[in-house]
Amino acid sequence: MENFEYPKLNLIKPVPSDIDIASAAQPLPIKSIANSVGLLEEEIDFYGKYKAKVSLEVVERLKDVENGNYVVVTGINPTPLGEGKSTTTIGLCQALGAHLGKKTFACIRQPSQGPTFGIKGGAAGGGYSQVIPMEEFNLHMTGDIHAITAANNLLAAAIDTRVLHESTQTDAQLWKRLCPEAKDGSRKFAPIMLRRLKKLGIDKTEPNELTQEEISRFVRLDIDPSRITWNRVLDTNDRFLRGISVGQGKEEQRFERKTNFDISVASEIMAVLALCTSLHDMRERLGRMVIGPSRSGEPITADDLGVGGAITVLMRDAIMPTLMQTLEGTPVLVHAGPFANIAHGNSSIIADQIALKLAGKEGYVVTEAGFGADIGAEKFFDIKCRSSGLKPNCAVIVATVRALKMHGGGPKVVAGTPLDKAYTDENLELLGKGTDNLAHHIKNLKKFGVGVVVAINKFHTDTDAEVKLLVERSLAAGANSAVMSDHWAEGGNGALQLAHAVEKACKETNKENFKYLYPLDKSIKEKIETIAKEIYGADGVEYLPEAEEKIKLYNSQGFDKLPICMAKTHLSLSHDSERKGVPTGFTLPIRDVKISAGAGFIYPIVGTIASIPGLPTRPCFFEIDIDTKSGKIIGLS
Amino acid sequence: MENFEYPKLNLIKPVPSDIDIASAAQPLPIKSIANSVGLLEEEIDFYGKYKAKVSLEVVERLKDVENGNYVVVTGINPTPLGEGKSTTTIGLCQALGAHLGKKTFACIRQPSQGPTFGIKGGAAGGGYSQVIPMEEFNLHMTGDIHAITAANNLLAAAIDTRVLHESTQTDAQLWKRLCPEAKDGSRKFAPIMLRRLKKLGIDKTEPNELTQEEISRFVRLDIDPSRITWNRVLDTNDRFLRGISVGQGKEEQRFERKTNFDISVASEIMAVLALCTSLHDMRERLGRMVIGPSRSGEPITADDLGVGGAITVLMRDAIMPTLMQTLEGTPVLVHAGPFANIAHGNSSIIADQIALKLAGKEGYVVTEAGFGADIGAEKFFDIKCRSSGLKPNCAVIVATVRALKMHGGGPKVVAGTPLDKAYTDENLELLGKGTDNLAHHIKNLKKFGVGVVVAINKFHTDTDAEVKLLVERSLAAGANSAVMSDHWAEGGNGALQLAHAVEKACKETNKENFKYLYPLDKSIKEKIETIAKEIYGADGVEYLPEAEEKIKLYNSQGFDKLPICMAKTHLSLSHDSERKGVPTGFTLPIRDVKISAGAGFIYPIVGTIASIPGLPTRPCFFEIDIDTKSGKIIGLS
Repeated sequence: MENFEYPKLNLIKPVPSDIDIASAAQPLPIKSIANSVGLLEEEIDFYGKYKAKVSLEVVERLKDVENGNYVVVTGINPTPLGEGKSTTTIGLCQALGAHLGKKTFACIRQPSQGPTFGIKGGAAGGGYSQVIPMEEFNLHMTGDIHAITAANNLLAAAIDTRVLHESTQTDAQLWKRLCPEAKDGSRKFAPIMLRRLKKLGIDKTEPNELTQEEISRFVRLDIDPSRITWNRVLDTNDRFLRGISVGQGKEEQRFERKTNFDISVASEIMAVLALCTSLHDMRERLGRMVIGPSRSGEPITADDLGVGGAITVLMRDAIMPTLMQTLEGTPVLVHAGPFANIAHGNSSIIADQIALKLAGKEGYVVTEAGFGADIGAEKFFDIKCRSSGLKPNCAVIVATVRALKMHGGGPKVVAGTPLDKAYTDENLELLGKGTDNLAHHIKNLKKFGVGVVVAINKFHTDTDAEVKLLVERSLAAGANSAVMSDHWAEGGNGALQLAHAVEKACKETNKENFKYLYPLDKSIKEKIETIAKEIYGADGVEYLPEAEEKIKLYNSQGFDKLPICMAKTHLSLSHDSERKGVPTGFTLPIRDVKISAGAGFIYPIVGTIASIPGLPTRPCFFEIDIDTKSGKIIGLS
Repeated sequence: MENFEYPKLNLIKPVPSDIDIASAAQPLPIKSIANSVGLLEEEIDFYGKYKAKVSLEVVERLKDVENGNYVVVTGINPTPLGEGKSTTTIGLCQALGAHLGKKTFACIRQPSQGPTFGIKGGAAGGGYSQVIPMEEFNLHMTGDIHAITAANNLLAAAIDTRVLHESTQTDAQLWKRLCPEAKDGSRKFAPIMLRRLKKLGIDKTEPNELTQEEISRFVRLDIDPSRITWNRVLDTNDRFLRGISVGQGKEEQRFERKTNFDISVASEIMAVLALCTSLHDMRERLGRMVIGPSRSGEPITADDLGVGGAITVLMRDAIMPTLMQTLEGTPVLVHAGPFANIAHGNSSIIADQIALKLAGKEGYVVTEAGFGADIGAEKFFDIKCRSSGLKPNCAVIVATVRALKMHGGGPKVVAGTPLDKAYTDENLELLGKGTDNLAHHIKNLKKFGVGVVVAINKFHTDTDAEVKLLVERSLAAGANSAVMSDHWAEGGNGALQLAHAVEKACKETNKENFKYLYPLDKSIKEKIETIAKEIYGADGVEYLPEAEEKIKLYNSQGFDKLPICMAKTHLSLSHDSERKGVPTGFTLPIRDVKISAGAGFIYPIVGTIASIPGLPTRPCFFEIDIDTKSGKIIGLS
């Protein structure tokens, strides 16, 4: 640490494109970054020159070190353009680390490759607050999402194949193949089979001691093909996989069924990766993932299929977070990237654990929660922190003048079309009305007992009067501080005020005041209703028949003690993305309820969730190419 | 190199399981291996402690160094159990390198993950001739296959989405979106669009200069959905994806079509990776891959879809071979692993190029060709060497007493059932008859002008008389040498005789005598017939109507100058896997003819080719798990 020098930014005005800034930067060897944060050589595995995987053993080595300050970055309900949470996360860390000299980690999610080639482009931050090298961050990185794809699809293949084999074989044939007889007449269970026996309440380890009835129960999972909930995944924006039929090959035709692909980051395995706290915990969670019920309604798991171990093996390297760096040489841990609707949208617990130990008492760990505070932050507190036992000090809520004007009644904001004048000219009336949305989120966050700092992510069109109004309203709503931040144009130097505000909020807040919104022992419906009323401001909740039926099923299966992960739009506090500001007088409709038993949550579906995006007529990929002389990537955004 | 010490094997009898041997070995840091072969620090990228990617710049740096001896390992027509080509490749390299002190590289294919969890298990060699760490080799390695999956499926998504967009938009709408107007009325082509214009013979770079008719030709690829040949891929043994329907989602229903997934290693992108000679060459090949014809019969390419650059970007790291090591610390380059039926089944040209330079004049590069010599070696010579311009010195043909007895009329060999006594007791009669198969392959190989060494891969049941008979017959058929090799039980020390035989054959052979079987300017049918008659021993060839039609199409599209890549069973010299020995009096039936225009070959389909394997009732995955305390993988085979 002593000899480490943060690289200086060479700020250019007007601010060049993200890729131009990223390409102009010369990243430090990741070895220097690793040294600077006190990682030992044996604790890192290089992946090229600018990425390294970090071993979980760090946590054990530093178990006596006090954790650093734990800060979550969240936001108001955004416009479809996004309000800059990632950029603010990076900018804040550059300020705390490179400018204030605090040991500071940004813990962020790995982006899906789908949007990189589709509409959105990459997710490495923006302007002078970016993770580099941005092409390595946005593309394969260290292969974690690919590992998830492989693991997810191995389980999918195991499911359909098992249904086929059970349908075409007698109990005796299945037994003979699953537990073959050796020459001397002996049989042996694979260790994973003992898990199924235990679940069935069969307390035997000698195959030859099983009764016929026990053999039958053991060999027949009796999966109900019409109720399989496990989908295949690909990390590609392929809308034609939203609805497919599989099993149309000659030999599988009798078993044809309708299903679909999701994008890989929507896989439950991603949520498991993000929520597990150790290798052992990951193994157990992967094993108990439910792929659907048997015909008699029993939950069938990955371990029942004999594949929980193999998918853990596929995830063995993915469990290690990837160390990268910001433009100013501060450390970044990239790890996991679960969907923020059907999953909890937060980066991994393991990355936070490692970072908190490496940062130490005086240091900072800034972690990002997806979507707005009604979803990402609520899930951060009630799901992620509950799973890890870690207590946050402070939440940073990112707001923009643009988005708040939209909440105040401004015209619709559409990606790809120019912004209305209402957004680029001063308009205190629209902004004033819109701040209600921000105030609502501030009040929500205070319910969890954490400090709240508002970061006004600066656009060059914002006027002093607008910023002043925003600050006043934020403080009135109970924020510890509210400050303008110009990290996009200025890097860490532009986020100094924000960094000081965060320091102050962390000092002012007693971690021990942190609390969850609801206890787990409430019923599924009570938990849903608490979130709907307390966080979204709904009058109540209504359940469609499908949802009622599923709640009954999960109650009967003993899954009622899990936390709730709402799958709701991020564009409104309500379920209706068109209702801006602070909607009132609405009843939250629950269309369906699903489960991620391994990740460990129930997810009620509010509205329609697209689980695999599409490509526009002219996707980003048209611009992306490689200069074959220099090997440099062109056109990535 | 000076200070490098090869690790000594600690041989145990009886030979333990592959995973036990592999786990007991402590691999050297890959940095030491890299140093030992003269790689510079800036030429390698670490991927963990035991794998490193090697930069293509090595070839440029060492351009004045004379290439090493170039040896291809091939085999007779095998039993379904395999006859040990990979094991022999590794054992031979251990002998040449660690025992004879020659700079020696093994260049081998990356295995598909499908079989690792299915029936076959891993592919890292066996016994005391293995690549380590075997779990890293058999699982994700450095992510190359995952990159192929991502690139392949991005192209697939682009195809179906383009069909949809062209069907729902007018020419003007497509033009507006593909080439949007800026505020000042100007339009700009993405550079990749100029490729399409050039193909269309439109010599313009200013969008506003295009005529209506030119715009229409530019924006409408007019892909014929019923003749799309590009499939999606996954590296999973998922038989339910052999026949599927896509586009059954609400918004895609009008465009529903039948298609299928292949296993990732069957992707044309894998063949491109294996056959390209530089980054530039890869970019061009990927861009000209044909995904099917337009309604008027024009070949539509990845570049027409605007995605050739993006998929190259996804393959940017994959183009670098991965350096690993054998149990005796000799270097291994792992790179590419195309199917040996619908593709050419050889590891990459780039790995061979790098290895030949690093090995230098006195050194050896041992590369493996999939399947038997009738397929793998023929394709090595006629496709791979033709593409690279490299000239091989010598072919090693791996034979086993077991397989030759089968060719001599022994009972059927089936995986998973015990071998018949005919195979475990001495039987000179069966073996004597069976050697015809070996003799046929030796004569075939001599046609290419290379040295031929027969490696009798030893089984403990082989008798001295059997080995003696085999040696005699091999020499009589024209082999330079024929030797027994016991590398499985003894490591490099067991392959010393083989190593000496290879040295001798390389010295005896004048590389300049190397020749192809056929010139490219013959017609497609003439080339097919040459292979069928000269290599397989067929009387002639018959073409089914589908095949006739495709040959006409490729002739009209100008693809008739490509080499031929036969998709035939490896279990027989003929098209019928049941016909052992040296079948005669048969006509080779060509069911269909397909093209890999980017990889650069035409592949006639002889028989049925399964392009995605299935899982048995009890797949390997039941045994595979992780010890969560030590992090060690269990049960991988």
